[in-house]
Amino acid sequence: MRILVLGGDGFCGWPTSLHLSDRGHEVTIVDNLSRRMIDLDLEVESLTPIRPIGERIKVWQQVSGQRLGFVNLDLATEYERFVGVLRSLRPDAIVHFAEQRAAPYSMRSTTAKRYTVDNNVRATHNVLAGLVETGLDAALVHLGTMGVYGYGWSGSAPIPEGYLTVKVPTPDGDIEREILHPANPGSVYHLTKTLDQLMFAFYARNDQIRITDLHQGIVWGTQTPQTSRDERLVNRFDYDGDYGTVLNRFLMQAAIGHPLTVHGSGGQTRAFIHITDTVRCIEIALANPPAGPKPMVFNQITETHRVRDLAKLVAELTGVEVANLPNPRREADENELNVRNDNFLALGLRPTTLSEGLLAECSDIAQRYRDRVDPTKIIARSVWRAGMATSPDLVGELPAR
Amino acid sequence: MRILVLGGDGFCGWPTSLHLSDRGHEVTIVDNLSRRMIDLDLEVESLTPIRPIGERIKVWQQVSGQRLGFVNLDLATEYERFVGVLRSLRPDAIVHFAEQRAAPYSMRSTTAKRYTVDNNVRATHNVLAGLVETGLDAALVHLGTMGVYGYGWSGSAPIPEGYLTVKVPTPDGDIEREILHPANPGSVYHLTKTLDQLMFAFYARNDQIRITDLHQGIVWGTQTPQTSRDERLVNRFDYDGDYGTVLNRFLMQAAIGHPLTVHGSGGQTRAFIHITDTVRCIEIALANPPAGPKPMVFNQITETHRVRDLAKLVAELTGVEVANLPNPRREADENELNVRNDNFLALGLRPTTLSEGLLAECSDIAQRYRDRVDPTKIIARSVWRAGMATSPDLVGELPAR
Repeated sequence: MRILVLGGDGFCGWPTSLHLSDRGHEVTIVDNLSRRMIDLDLEVESLTPIRPIGERIKVWQQVSGQRLGFVNLDLATEYERFVGVLRSLRPDAIVHFAEQRAAPYSMRSTTAKRYTVDNNVRATHNVLAGLVETGLDAALVHLGTMGVYGYGWSGSAPIPEGYLTVKVPTPDGDIEREILHPANPGSVYHLTKTLDQLMFAFYARNDQIRITDLHQGIVWGTQTPQTSRDERLVNRFDYDGDYGTVLNRFLMQAAIGHPLTVHGSGGQTRAFIHITDTVRCIEIALANPPAGPKPMVFNQITETHRVRDLAKLVAELTGVEVANLPNPRREADENELNVRNDNFLALGLRPTTLSEGLLAECSDIAQRYRDRVDPTKIIARSVWRAGMATSPDLVGELPAR
Repeated sequence: MRILVLGGDGFCGWPTSLHLSDRGHEVTIVDNLSRRMIDLDLEVESLTPIRPIGERIKVWQQVSGQRLGFVNLDLATEYERFVGVLRSLRPDAIVHFAEQRAAPYSMRSTTAKRYTVDNNVRATHNVLAGLVETGLDAALVHLGTMGVYGYGWSGSAPIPEGYLTVKVPTPDGDIEREILHPANPGSVYHLTKTLDQLMFAFYARNDQIRITDLHQGIVWGTQTPQTSRDERLVNRFDYDGDYGTVLNRFLMQAAIGHPLTVHGSGGQTRAFIHITDTVRCIEIALANPPAGPKPMVFNQITETHRVRDLAKLVAELTGVEVANLPNPRREADENELNVRNDNFLALGLRPTTLSEGLLAECSDIAQRYRDRVDPTKIIARSVWRAGMATSPDLVGELPAR
């Protein structure tokens, strides 16, 4: 297949591009390098030294023999150029990662809130409008988030895959209706993914665009078989308080002897997936586009854990202590979480779950690059509302090895 | 109260601004005159000769003694200037009409679809972000649409005011949950109003912004007591296939002897409200802001009618014939509609319903300005999907009086 990967330079986009290229697909990355620019703005860098996109692509060709296309394009603002790409490449499928993807960053400042909404909504709508305008029948796979529903809304019922059948009271008795699972976003970032869902539902119905929305859990891990082939292909590893994901942050903290930062009680239960499963799920979704006039939703997760249990696990493996810090987010202290992921399991996903081996691999990466850590970037301080308490730095300078 | 009216130069915004000013409020209009610019683009004009905003404001001061402020500002793109306005004027309340408001226009072209999404989403989000950034506790009243729910979804149950209590099945039996009424938008325009709803829900919950969302029916009529005071204060009267609303279009068509254009079967039942009730509803909503952490939703409608019944009524009153034309929209041919409007009734709205007197008033306006009609702008031709049938013009030149 000819596949466009929108946002193909990012944490999920890059390993997905390599995985799909490795499987023989003709992959073109569309990216405006915004993720790298946000790093400049935040004065932080990926723990792993990621190479410029041109070098990444050249090295991939050396090690795999496969060519990756690349177009530097701002999907939110350069619609006409995007349509030009669609017309010239005529992709069979599009994978859409081209959105600002960090909840804390989306709450950091007015500028970041506005950027997240303006960028994400326009990017998604431009993809949909471009498909309608060109008449291309490309399947669209979008990376959404588990967080669109919030946590704990549906009682003991597991979170379904997109749709929920409810009973609506009427004067003639209850009637059953299938609804998009009600949205309950916990941040401006999550909000934009709930806006995406409504745009998908409309364009699927009105224009028969074939859309798969992947409600992904929190990704952990760094490397995939493809990104491991050469150091210059290494994937991002975000550890800062805005972009770092919780388990990777714990592993980085352990690597430098920093207390494990549990913000809030740690009673938050979240869904997780390893990066190697992310890229496989995308491939499975591409191979199984929906037929009907409504988007297909997959819960892209493999397991659930409570944050404090993950901290305890890493503490026991590594001997570092746990620090309980004020939570800058407005969220429930404790929640249960029960998520269906039948769709991916039925289509052949064999989940990669938390194991000492994988934790060790990730720890190795963290150890290897530990000298790149700036300990003043670790504490999460983007507050959900002005005036909420945050913690000072726990460690002022990088401890010696 | 100091009140900002965003979009205060438009069809609902202008009479609302005058009504609120007449009641002694200190009103400032914020508008980028986009509605006038779209007329230029569509090569069509309001049936009534509307005056430049500066002249409108000057005349209002002459006839009422009241000053209206005016700021020419693009709410979607000039965020910093908007925050400057908030900080200098410190409004007690904001009325938000500043969105592209025609469903047919929103489906007319890719450019119009993208403009509708980019403008409406960013405008609404900028209002919310501006309130958070400045910390102003201004109540926000937003003009939404009845069309966010689609038609016919809830069986014989009347459409509630925003929220619906449903039963969700769980392993432990059904649990009751209040949800935002599921969205089922019929156009890109309606889609943007469903996106607004989710933004409102998030900002009300996270930042305690006090929001009232008015789900308005189709407006008819032209004049209010204030816009009637001087011909130079006259309100817009849109008759073209994109912006004209159905009943006003029928009255204009009757005035020039054009067949009444029923697109589709005419079995569509829609909710209606007269422009004089629109402005009263806004005033009532401003006086009754919500207290809690969720937006208050009012159905801003006074009656429902089937399109073919309205055509029949106007045909009988005026002797013109009815023409059944292809429907450029994708919508159900027939639907029932039962809408609750308890909130406004409880707060004192006395509905102005369809009456011969009001129809005659509107007909008079249409007769008076009939020579301004361009009959080639009457047929609705913005199709919901490429290739749908449309009607040719029924009348080539304006018939003599």
